[in-house]
Amino acid sequence: MNKKKIGIIGATGYTGSELVRILTNHPDVEIAMITSESRAGELFSDVHPFLQGIADQKLVSINDIDNYELDLVFLALPHGVSMDFVKRFNDKKFKIIDLSGDFRLNSQEVYEAWYKINHIYPEGIKKAVFGSPELFYNEIKEASLIANPGCFPTSAILGLAPLLAGNLIETDRIIVDSKTGVTGAGIKAKNVNLYSNVNDNFKAYGLKNHRHTIEIQGILEEVSGKETIIQFTPHLLPVDRGILTTIYVRPTEKMDETTLKNLYASFYANAPFVRLRKEAPAIKDVRGTNYCDLFVTYDERTNMVIVVSVIDNLIKGAAGQAIQNMNIVFGLEETSGLKLIPLNP
Amino acid sequence: MNKKKIGIIGATGYTGSELVRILTNHPDVEIAMITSESRAGELFSDVHPFLQGIADQKLVSINDIDNYELDLVFLALPHGVSMDFVKRFNDKKFKIIDLSGDFRLNSQEVYEAWYKINHIYPEGIKKAVFGSPELFYNEIKEASLIANPGCFPTSAILGLAPLLAGNLIETDRIIVDSKTGVTGAGIKAKNVNLYSNVNDNFKAYGLKNHRHTIEIQGILEEVSGKETIIQFTPHLLPVDRGILTTIYVRPTEKMDETTLKNLYASFYANAPFVRLRKEAPAIKDVRGTNYCDLFVTYDERTNMVIVVSVIDNLIKGAAGQAIQNMNIVFGLEETSGLKLIPLNP
Amino acid sequence: MNKKKIGIIGATGYTGSELVRILTNHPDVEIAMITSESRAGELFSDVHPFLQGIADQKLVSINDIDNYELDLVFLALPHGVSMDFVKRFNDKKFKIIDLSGDFRLNSQEVYEAWYKINHIYPEGIKKAVFGSPELFYNEIKEASLIANPGCFPTSAILGLAPLLAGNLIETDRIIVDSKTGVTGAGIKAKNVNLYSNVNDNFKAYGLKNHRHTIEIQGILEEVSGKETIIQFTPHLLPVDRGILTTIYVRPTEKMDETTLKNLYASFYANAPFVRLRKEAPAIKDVRGTNYCDLFVTYDERTNMVIVVSVIDNLIKGAAGQAIQNMNIVFGLEETSGLKLIPLNP
Amino acid sequence: MNKKKIGIIGATGYTGSELVRILTNHPDVEIAMITSESRAGELFSDVHPFLQGIADQKLVSINDIDNYELDLVFLALPHGVSMDFVKRFNDKKFKIIDLSGDFRLNSQEVYEAWYKINHIYPEGIKKAVFGSPELFYNEIKEASLIANPGCFPTSAILGLAPLLAGNLIETDRIIVDSKTGVTGAGIKAKNVNLYSNVNDNFKAYGLKNHRHTIEIQGILEEVSGKETIIQFTPHLLPVDRGILTTIYVRPTEKMDETTLKNLYASFYANAPFVRLRKEAPAIKDVRGTNYCDLFVTYDERTNMVIVVSVIDNLIKGAAGQAIQNMNIVFGLEETSGLKLIPLNP
Repeated sequence: MNKKKIGIIGATGYTGSELVRILTNHPDVEIAMITSESRAGELFSDVHPFLQGIADQKLVSINDIDNYELDLVFLALPHGVSMDFVKRFNDKKFKIIDLSGDFRLNSQEVYEAWYKINHIYPEGIKKAVFGSPELFYNEIKEASLIANPGCFPTSAILGLAPLLAGNLIETDRIIVDSKTGVTGAGIKAKNVNLYSNVNDNFKAYGLKNHRHTIEIQGILEEVSGKETIIQFTPHLLPVDRGILTTIYVRPTEKMDETTLKNLYASFYANAPFVRLRKEAPAIKDVRGTNYCDLFVTYDERTNMVIVVSVIDNLIKGAAGQAIQNMNIVFGLEETSGLKLIPLNP
Repeated sequence: MNKKKIGIIGATGYTGSELVRILTNHPDVEIAMITSESRAGELFSDVHPFLQGIADQKLVSINDIDNYELDLVFLALPHGVSMDFVKRFNDKKFKIIDLSGDFRLNSQEVYEAWYKINHIYPEGIKKAVFGSPELFYNEIKEASLIANPGCFPTSAILGLAPLLAGNLIETDRIIVDSKTGVTGAGIKAKNVNLYSNVNDNFKAYGLKNHRHTIEIQGILEEVSGKETIIQFTPHLLPVDRGILTTIYVRPTEKMDETTLKNLYASFYANAPFVRLRKEAPAIKDVRGTNYCDLFVTYDERTNMVIVVSVIDNLIKGAAGQAIQNMNIVFGLEETSGLKLIPLNP
Repeated sequence: MNKKKIGIIGATGYTGSELVRILTNHPDVEIAMITSESRAGELFSDVHPFLQGIADQKLVSINDIDNYELDLVFLALPHGVSMDFVKRFNDKKFKIIDLSGDFRLNSQEVYEAWYKINHIYPEGIKKAVFGSPELFYNEIKEASLIANPGCFPTSAILGLAPLLAGNLIETDRIIVDSKTGVTGAGIKAKNVNLYSNVNDNFKAYGLKNHRHTIEIQGILEEVSGKETIIQFTPHLLPVDRGILTTIYVRPTEKMDETTLKNLYASFYANAPFVRLRKEAPAIKDVRGTNYCDLFVTYDERTNMVIVVSVIDNLIKGAAGQAIQNMNIVFGLEETSGLKLIPLNP
Repeated sequence: MNKKKIGIIGATGYTGSELVRILTNHPDVEIAMITSESRAGELFSDVHPFLQGIADQKLVSINDIDNYELDLVFLALPHGVSMDFVKRFNDKKFKIIDLSGDFRLNSQEVYEAWYKINHIYPEGIKKAVFGSPELFYNEIKEASLIANPGCFPTSAILGLAPLLAGNLIETDRIIVDSKTGVTGAGIKAKNVNLYSNVNDNFKAYGLKNHRHTIEIQGILEEVSGKETIIQFTPHLLPVDRGILTTIYVRPTEKMDETTLKNLYASFYANAPFVRLRKEAPAIKDVRGTNYCDLFVTYDERTNMVIVVSVIDNLIKGAAGQAIQNMNIVFGLEETSGLKLIPLNP
C-alpha cells in the first residue's frame, strides 16, 4: 500500500512536536509537509533540537500547501486561528483533523458565549464530527472534518460515558475535579508556566468558567439524552504531562461494585486504548501513550460512585487521539503507529 | 516572665523537626528535653544535619522524663503508640498536646472501627479537646490534653465550618477532594514516597476509607449539629509540603457571592491565621507558615458553592497548629513565635 | 535605639521580595519606602500575593525618593540600569547597597569587555567595596557604596579563599563547576525558565563566557595576590533556589585531610554564616537561610583538593548577604534579623 | 528469520522493566522467559502495573531455566549476585550480557579493592568483553560474555575517548563531574531516594571513591595506552532519568575549535547513537532513548577543553546499550528495536 501523505499545520507547539514524534515511526503514513509561518525555511529540528537527526524536515509556509498532494491535514493551531484555515480548506480534497476548540461545541451561540469571540465558519460546526473514537467510531469513519477533543474533556467523557449512556446517575450535579500537567498551557513562556510558579506548587484555576466545561457538558448531553450539569474545576500540577480526573456522582438506583465494574468492562470491550485498572491509576502509568486508564468504585457508606481517569494530555488528550482518528478515517488498524509503551519512571 | 519549659517526645520525624525549627525562635518558651529511643545520646542535629549549629541538643530517653520540670509536652509519635504515653502521663503536671490521631475521634467504637486497633485509653478520648483554635478556642484554653487535628481535617474543617455553622448547605454529600504533599506520608522511606514513584506523577489513594474521613465528619457534625456525610478523596502531589482541598456543596437556600464572602469574613474575623483570598490560592502561598488561606465562590449556573483551602501540612496541619494551641494554653499571644512568612518561591 | 529607615528600589523581582520578607521581621530597621515604576500605586502584596496581610506597603515612584528620610537604600535592579541610579544618588546622605553586577569588577575596561555595554559611572567602580563580609569586613564597615556579590561568585569565593589566601594551590586552572536553581534567571517568564524546559531536566549553559567568571577571578586575584585562572561552568538545576559549586584544585605542596580542615576552621572562625560540614552538604540544608555550607576534602590518589559549597542563591547569594552588609554598616550584630532556619524539607 | 529467544534474569528493578519495555516492540527477538525469585508465579505487570495489557508474562524461577531454549540471557541483578549466575551458566549455549559491575574491571585485585567483596569467578573477568559498541564493536561481535558498561562510565568514556585515542590531552588530572537522575540508585526505597530528600535538592556523593571511577579509568587507560588519572564526582539530581557529565581537560598541544569538532565527527562517523550537538545538550533531549549527545568546545582563555555528555542512564546507560550489544552479537542492524524518540517534554 502506498503510504498516506500527511500535512501538519503549525510546528512550533507541543502538539506539533508530538504529532511528528509519533508519525515518524508510523508504518502506514508519511509526513509530507510541516508548516510554520514564524520559522519557515528552518528545520523542524531547529525548533525542537531534541529531534536532531530524527525529524530534519524543512518548514514551509502554509501558502505553499498546493504544492503538496495531501491525504489528510492536522491543524495544530490556537483556537480562533484554526477556524480560518478550516474555512479556507473547505474545498480541498484532503481530510482535516482540527486540534483546536473551534469545532467541538454544538452551536455558534454556545461557542461565542464561552470563547468570547465570533465564529467565522458556523457551517464547519455542523459538519464537524467530535473525534472521540470510543463514542463516535462510525461517524469518524465517514467524516471529512474532525474536531479532536480537548484534553480535559477526553478524560471526563471517557470516565462518565458508561454511566450516562446507561442512565444510571443523577445529572444535576456531576462533580469533575481535574488536575493537569503544565504542557496543557502551551509552549510559550508566561507566568502560568514559569518554573518557580509551578514547581513544588499546586493551585486551582478557571473556576466556574473554564471552556472545557461546556465541551464536556455538550457531549455528555448527547450521551445521556437529557440536561446534564457539569461542575468542572481544573488544577495545575507540577508535572509536564498528564491529566487525572476525579469524578463524583450519585446513582439513581441501587448500585454495587460488581455491576459497576461490569458496566465499564462491557462498554469498553472493543476500545483498545481504554484500560480498566484494578487500583486507582497514576498519570505516569500512561505517560507517553494513547491510553486512558480508568478506575471506578462504589461507596456504599455515602451512596456515591467515584471514577478516576488518567491520560497523557498531549497524546490521548491531543496528538495521539488525532492519529487514532486518522487511522479510523484511513481504514487502518486503530492502533497502527500507536503501540506506545509508558515511559515510567 | 520565665520561659515555659517544653518537652518533645519523638525527634526523628518531620513533626519533631518542625516543632524544633519553630520553637527555636519562639520568644516565650524553651525546649527543655527532646526524646528519641532509637537515637538517644546523639545530637538532634545528627538526626537532622541541616540544623547543625542551630539545634544541637542531646537526645534523651523518654524514661528520663522525671529529670525535667516541664510545663508542656508535645507527642510527635505514630498513632497507636501515642495513646500509651498519654495514659502513662495521666498524673503528670504538664499539659499534653498529642499530634497523633489517637484522641481526635468521638468514641472508642468509632476509633476502633476506622483505625482497626484497640484503644487502650478511652478515658483520654473523653478528656481530650480537639485542637482547632478557630472553633474551640475556649475549650483549648482550659484543656490538659489536646488532640491536635490531622492535616487533611484542618484544611477541610476550616473550609466548611462557616457554611455548616450557619446551616446553609445540604449535608448528605459534601465532596472533599484533597491533594497533599509527600511529607504527609512521613520520613521513613517506602514505596509511596520513593522519588521516582512521586516525581512527575499524581494519583488518588485511600478512596472511601481514609481515616481522616471520619475525623472531618465527626467534627463537622459537632459544628452542624446534624448528620453530615463527607466524601473524602486524598491525592498525592509531587511536592514536599502543602495541602490543597477543593470542596463542593449545594446551598439549601438562595445564595450569592456577597453573602458568601461576608459569611466567611465574619466567621474568621478574629482568626489571625486564616486569610481570605481574592483569588484561588496556591500551596506555595502558605509554605513554611501557619496560615490557612481560603477562597470561596458561588456558581450560579450550577447552584453550587466551591471552597478552595490551602495549608502547609507540617505547620498549620501539624507542628504550627500545635504551637498555636500551646500559646493559647499558656495565655500567650496566639501568634507568638508563629509570625512565619511564606518561603516563595 | 531608633530604627534605621530603609528604601528598596525595585519591588517586582525575587530580590525585592526576599529583602522585604527578611526585613519585615528585622528588629532594628524598618522599611520606609519601596519603589516600582511599573506598579506604583499598587500594594507590594498585589505584586506578591503570598505576602497579603504581611507586606501591604503602597509602592511609590523612585522620583518621590526625596520625600523620605532614608539611612540606606538597596538597589534591586538589573545591571545596566543600576549604575544610573548609583550615579544619581551620588550626593545623597544614605548608604547604597547595589545588588546588580555594575560595581563588582575591577575596572571600566573589564566591565565593558564582559558585559558588552558602556559603564556610565566609572568613579563608582573605584568607590565601591565588594560586599563579601568574610573577606572585607573592615572595608564594608566604612563603605558608602557596596557592590553586593553575585550568587555564583559568593559560593565560589568562599569555597576557595582559604586556599588562595594561604598560597596553597596551583592557580593556572581552577575548575569551578556550579549548579544553580532557576530563580537565578529572574522572575520574568522566558524560555530558560519555562517549567517544561527545566522540570526533570538539566543542562550546562554560558560555557566559557559567563560574566561571573571574571567576578570570581577578579576577587580571587585580590585574595591570592597573583594571576588566577578560573574555568567556570554554570548548570541549570530543576529546583527553585540554591547553588552547589564543586571545585577542583591541585595543591602546590604536600597536603593532608587534617591540615585542610584546620585551614578552613581557622579562616572562618569568626564567620557566623559559614558552616563547615562533616559530610558533603545539600542545597536544601541552607534553603531559606544566609548560610554558606562548605565541605573540603583531599584526594590522596589524585593529589587534588575538592571543595563543595552550597548557598541559597536568593539569600546568601543576594538579599541576605545584602542585609548582612547593612548590619555591618550600621554597627549592628552581624546576624541581626538573619537567624533564619532552613526550610527542609 | 526466526525470532531469537531471550531470557531476562531479574524482573523487579528498573533495568528489568526497561529491557521488557524496549524488547516488546523489537522486531527480531522475543522474550521467552523472565525470572524473579521473590515474585515467581505473578505476572510481570503485577510487579510493574503500568505494563498491564502490554507485558503480562508469568514470572518463573531461575531454576526453571533449562525448560527454555534461549539464545541470549540478560542478567539484571545486583553486583555480587550476578557473578554467581555467570559462573553457573558457564557451560550454557546462550550468550550472556551482564548488566552488573561484576565483570567490567581489569582484574580480580582491582575488583576486590574497589568493591570490597571477593570475586568468585575471575575466569569470567578475563573472558568478558566490555560492551561499549563505539569502542569495541568487533570484540562484542564475537563475545560470549559481555560486561555491559556502567551508566556514569558510558557518559564519561564516550566524552573522552576521541581525545585519549588521539593522545591529545594531559592524563594526570582529568576532571569528570557527573550529575545523575535518581533511578541510578535503584527501585528499592531508601533514604537516598526518598522523595523529600531529593526534590528541590541537589548534592554530591561518593567523593573520591565511587566504584565507577576505576571503571572509567581502566577503560580509558586501554584507549590512551598510558596511565590516566580520573577525578570523578557524582551528584544527585532531582530528576528520574538522565546523566549529564561535564569534563575538563588540558590539551598537550595547540588546539582550536575546528580541530576539536572534526576529531569527534570523525571518531563517531559510524556511531548511530552518538549525536554531536551544536549547543550544550540537556538530559531531556535524550530521555527514553539510546542516544549519547556530545558537545565539545575549546576555551582559548584558559587553554582547556570542555566536554558535555548526556545519556538516559536506564537506556544508553543500561538496558538500551545492552540491547545494542545484543543486536551486534546477533548480526542484526545495530539500531534494530532502538529507534526510540526522546519523550520531551
